[in-house]
Amino acid sequence: MRWMNAYNLIFGKPLATTSEQSERLGIGAGIPVFGLDALSSAAYGPEAALTLLIPLGAAGVAYILPISLSIIVLLAIVFFSYRQTIAAYPSGGGSYIVASANLGVYPGLLAASALMIDYVLTAAVGISAGVGALVSAVPRLLPHTVGICMGILALITLVNLRGLRSAGIAFMAPTYLFVLTLLGALGWGVVKALFAGGHPVPVATPPHVAVSGGVATAGAWLLMQSFASGCTAMTGVEAVSNGVRAFREPTARTAQRTLTVIIGILMLMLAGIAYLCYAYGIQALPPGQNGYQSVLSMLVAAVAGRGIFYYVTIGFVLFALALSANTAFADFPRLCHAISQDGFLPYPFSIRGRRLVYTQGVFALAILAGVLLLAFRGVTDRLIPLYAIGAFLAFTLSQAGMVAHWRKHKGPGSGRSMAVNGLGALATGLTTLVVLVAKFTAGAWITAILIPALLLLMLGVHRRLNGAARSVATNSPMDIPKNEQPLVIVPVQTWNKVTRHALCLAMTLSAEVQVVHVHSEDDPPLIDTEWHELVEVPAKKAHLPVPGLVTLKSPYRYVVGPIVDYVLQVEHKNQGRQIALVVPELVAHHWYDFFLHNNRAEMLKASVLLRGNRNVAIINVPWYLKD
Amino acid sequence: MRWMNAYNLIFGKPLATTSEQSERLGIGAGIPVFGLDALSSAAYGPEAALTLLIPLGAAGVAYILPISLSIIVLLAIVFFSYRQTIAAYPSGGGSYIVASANLGVYPGLLAASALMIDYVLTAAVGISAGVGALVSAVPRLLPHTVGICMGILALITLVNLRGLRSAGIAFMAPTYLFVLTLLGALGWGVVKALFAGGHPVPVATPPHVAVSGGVATAGAWLLMQSFASGCTAMTGVEAVSNGVRAFREPTARTAQRTLTVIIGILMLMLAGIAYLCYAYGIQALPPGQNGYQSVLSMLVAAVAGRGIFYYVTIGFVLFALALSANTAFADFPRLCHAISQDGFLPYPFSIRGRRLVYTQGVFALAILAGVLLLAFRGVTDRLIPLYAIGAFLAFTLSQAGMVAHWRKHKGPGSGRSMAVNGLGALATGLTTLVVLVAKFTAGAWITAILIPALLLLMLGVHRRLNGAARSVATNSPMDIPKNEQPLVIVPVQTWNKVTRHALCLAMTLSAEVQVVHVHSEDDPPLIDTEWHELVEVPAKKAHLPVPGLVTLKSPYRYVVGPIVDYVLQVEHKNQGRQIALVVPELVAHHWYDFFLHNNRAEMLKASVLLRGNRNVAIINVPWYLKD
Repeated sequence: MRWMNAYNLIFGKPLATTSEQSERLGIGAGIPVFGLDALSSAAYGPEAALTLLIPLGAAGVAYILPISLSIIVLLAIVFFSYRQTIAAYPSGGGSYIVASANLGVYPGLLAASALMIDYVLTAAVGISAGVGALVSAVPRLLPHTVGICMGILALITLVNLRGLRSAGIAFMAPTYLFVLTLLGALGWGVVKALFAGGHPVPVATPPHVAVSGGVATAGAWLLMQSFASGCTAMTGVEAVSNGVRAFREPTARTAQRTLTVIIGILMLMLAGIAYLCYAYGIQALPPGQNGYQSVLSMLVAAVAGRGIFYYVTIGFVLFALALSANTAFADFPRLCHAISQDGFLPYPFSIRGRRLVYTQGVFALAILAGVLLLAFRGVTDRLIPLYAIGAFLAFTLSQAGMVAHWRKHKGPGSGRSMAVNGLGALATGLTTLVVLVAKFTAGAWITAILIPALLLLMLGVHRRLNGAARSVATNSPMDIPKNEQPLVIVPVQTWNKVTRHALCLAMTLSAEVQVVHVHSEDDPPLIDTEWHELVEVPAKKAHLPVPGLVTLKSPYRYVVGPIVDYVLQVEHKNQGRQIALVVPELVAHHWYDFFLHNNRAEMLKASVLLRGNRNVAIINVPWYLKD
Repeated sequence: MRWMNAYNLIFGKPLATTSEQSERLGIGAGIPVFGLDALSSAAYGPEAALTLLIPLGAAGVAYILPISLSIIVLLAIVFFSYRQTIAAYPSGGGSYIVASANLGVYPGLLAASALMIDYVLTAAVGISAGVGALVSAVPRLLPHTVGICMGILALITLVNLRGLRSAGIAFMAPTYLFVLTLLGALGWGVVKALFAGGHPVPVATPPHVAVSGGVATAGAWLLMQSFASGCTAMTGVEAVSNGVRAFREPTARTAQRTLTVIIGILMLMLAGIAYLCYAYGIQALPPGQNGYQSVLSMLVAAVAGRGIFYYVTIGFVLFALALSANTAFADFPRLCHAISQDGFLPYPFSIRGRRLVYTQGVFALAILAGVLLLAFRGVTDRLIPLYAIGAFLAFTLSQAGMVAHWRKHKGPGSGRSMAVNGLGALATGLTTLVVLVAKFTAGAWITAILIPALLLLMLGVHRRLNGAARSVATNSPMDIPKNEQPLVIVPVQTWNKVTRHALCLAMTLSAEVQVVHVHSEDDPPLIDTEWHELVEVPAKKAHLPVPGLVTLKSPYRYVVGPIVDYVLQVEHKNQGRQIALVVPELVAHHWYDFFLHNNRAEMLKASVLLRGNRNVAIINVPWYLKD
């Protein structure tokens, strides 16, 4: 089949379960897959912190140093915590697994809900942030914002459907080019600043915001808000711990090394950005105003001027932002898989598709992120305050789970480990509270509603799935009380090869066959006159019992309804006896034939399935209309 | 079921076939159903003719008298022709039936295509003309044009789905109020004009168009174009002949009388409008220009001033226009029924729905008209030139068919009848040519392409339906060569009540049952270990042959594919033997359960039906998940 080839070309050939090893990732491919989200956060985290310092004017910039330092310290704590988590859960230690294993079902589901919402927001916000920056650079593209967003979403979805390795390879080049150019720009700037004794002269002078009637000194509340905003730089850090199984043997070590590299680079970036903002006196500009530029844009321009290097660096920043959604695509399906294994999401989320990824999870994320992008017409600025909550809540529950873990698994060094995770839990827990309070009115309240709503939904799914599983579970063997053949009913409206074939089959299945024929008030039953010759004579000749003939008058011209009514009536009379309704069906080979024939067979099957009970089986006997 | 009550309330209770008589129409209800289209044409026919006379200035108005007279004479000829047609075809003498019975298949289909396109255009143009006039009177409604159009379309569709009588009753009041007020206004005007010696003083003076460099006298070409445009006043006249069977006994007489009344009123209207335009010197205004008013609006204002009477009359004109689509809804489904009876449209068009109307035809017309209205955003002015062609082509073929009819059925008076129909054919044929030539570049060429395209489509449908019917037709009795039981295959992935029940049923159907189990590379077959206890022991105890157990390894984790492959392979090995695949299915009761369970049973059924052949039957064994 030629379309199969095209399909394979686009989505890749199916991968055998045995080739799972070769799909696993090393450090090199692991960074683009699990690190792009964390690394690209450097593009908006410091900016978010600086934006809150705008009212302080030029003096406010100095506060970026302590704020960034706090964030880097927090990052270090979280890093050591997650290193331990990976070692303790080498088969995947995402917040959901750690929290549910150590703290119980509800904390686990709470972490899962928080992370799921975080991932959906990450995917949507990452793409729209990258595209937003692109269209502000090339205003001609502005009317196509939604289209470009959806195109990138489709691309990332496709690459992820092709498998994890494929995503790693596809996004390797942009990731490393982003890291190299940005670190290069920052390093260049730091060298220049040090040579200038801490007071470098900007190549392109950053614009200054005139503050009228502003605050002279920073209050604690303002600094807390700034810190909370800056914490968005830490989102995506949990990704590696969730995907440990995706790494090559030794999985835990490879995952830990990948995490070390990612966090190391992220710390360098945050430190460099903070120092250079301070050194060059770069203030954030109020977003949405004329002449707006991002902090990174002003910073790179101050260091290197607006030459080719500037455009290349900023270009890769945008690219990395748009592709940061990829981390969500790597983790979300794994998370859904883990949840569905415990019965809190439908079973299909557990199935690995043809390329060994959890296809349903990829689809679910693509649909949810697509809906968000469409609903917000590709401009998701307003969503940014929503999503640090989810990440930090998951951090906290994961670390708290680890504390409980070490309490259960006492051994050499477990005290130290518990202290590290405990510090992590405390720090991230406090940060969660700070973010929630600081951002509550800005939109964090939506997350505070969505997370428990999702939790309740998953509990509901679990209740229904569990109920279904319990009601069909059995260990008892077959129970064949008496070998009674079913009563077979064959509806025949006209005598043709389709119905003849179906009737012949029915007669081999049971000695008791009934033919039903529905006729309307003004037409006599069609089959009556020829019954003897068509059915009775050949049945007797074959020494088989002659089928019964039942004609049903249909005053309202319905056909399907009277047949189903009759079948259910027969079932009711023969309490407990198995009834089989034969449905002769003409199968056509082209889609347009669907419009040419009546689809009574389909309607009959659906109607019996809907209204019937376990004593009514449907025997679908096809007849093919070959061309 | 409560939703059934709501359904009955909206669509009406089902009507028994026996109550068909009471659904039939008398003259009173027949006029709104079959006459609204013809009568409302008076609102745009004369205006269309006058619009072409604009270049002649005030002098041009005089030409409306001979042009209207020609149209009235043509109308009279067509009237006598159709009266005869109704008498000759008391079971429905639409153009399709008359032309195909007397001229052959192709002329019949040509008439059918022409009429179908005419009806779709009538429905769309009628509604949008009414709504267009409404929004030009109440500009606040302008942004809702499409919505109002779709609302009226939905209303007319609903009323027609409720049955013919319901449409007749619903639209009776607006139709008669329209006829009364317009005839009243015209009569009042004529009386005034006669009293004023042919030169009445207008209450509201109609605006005059200043013609600069216009034509002094009318050329033959201009008059021909004006006549062709005016002929749109005749569309809808064929409706009664198509719907003869919808009338009460004596059907032919009732239909003839209804036709007489409709045409009589239409003639009066056309004559009155023409005379008053001449008497008051009312010129058409160029449409789409500032201060545009319709001819009828100026005329009623000239006669009665812009008082309450003016608004009531014009209101009912708009109402009648918007509801004129109803005639299309009465005739189009009947036409489709006749065509599908001959096999040129799919069979479902022949089925009378729960309210005794041809439901599929109503849906088809609603969808086509809806698409037109949406595509043109509710403004269908540009479609008007398209649709006189269809009507006149159908007129011509119908009259020509009648000529052929009288030649075959010679008798007393058949010569005179043939002369009447011959004159009709000649007149309408010439008019068709005139309209085609005059309107060709304005859009009639689109109709000239669409009509043959639809004809070819119907021929294609006929070829496929015929082929299918031939390939399944048989008169030969059952053929049971040997009473061999089918080989029954039961896929079992896990042992539960669903699969156990299915296997028990399978064993009552045939002595030869195979269980297939698909497992992936890294999981061993689940069923292997318990097979002996679950199946073998009870089968032996019941003195039944033990089913075979087949395990299939699936390297790519597919389940449905390997089962279907195996079934087809078994079928191939047992050439000609009947195979039955049992599909155990868990049936849930809520729509949301669809998302919770894997729908493998549905996929398996669909895949076998798609890839299988007549030797593979599907036995769907349901298990219900009752709450």
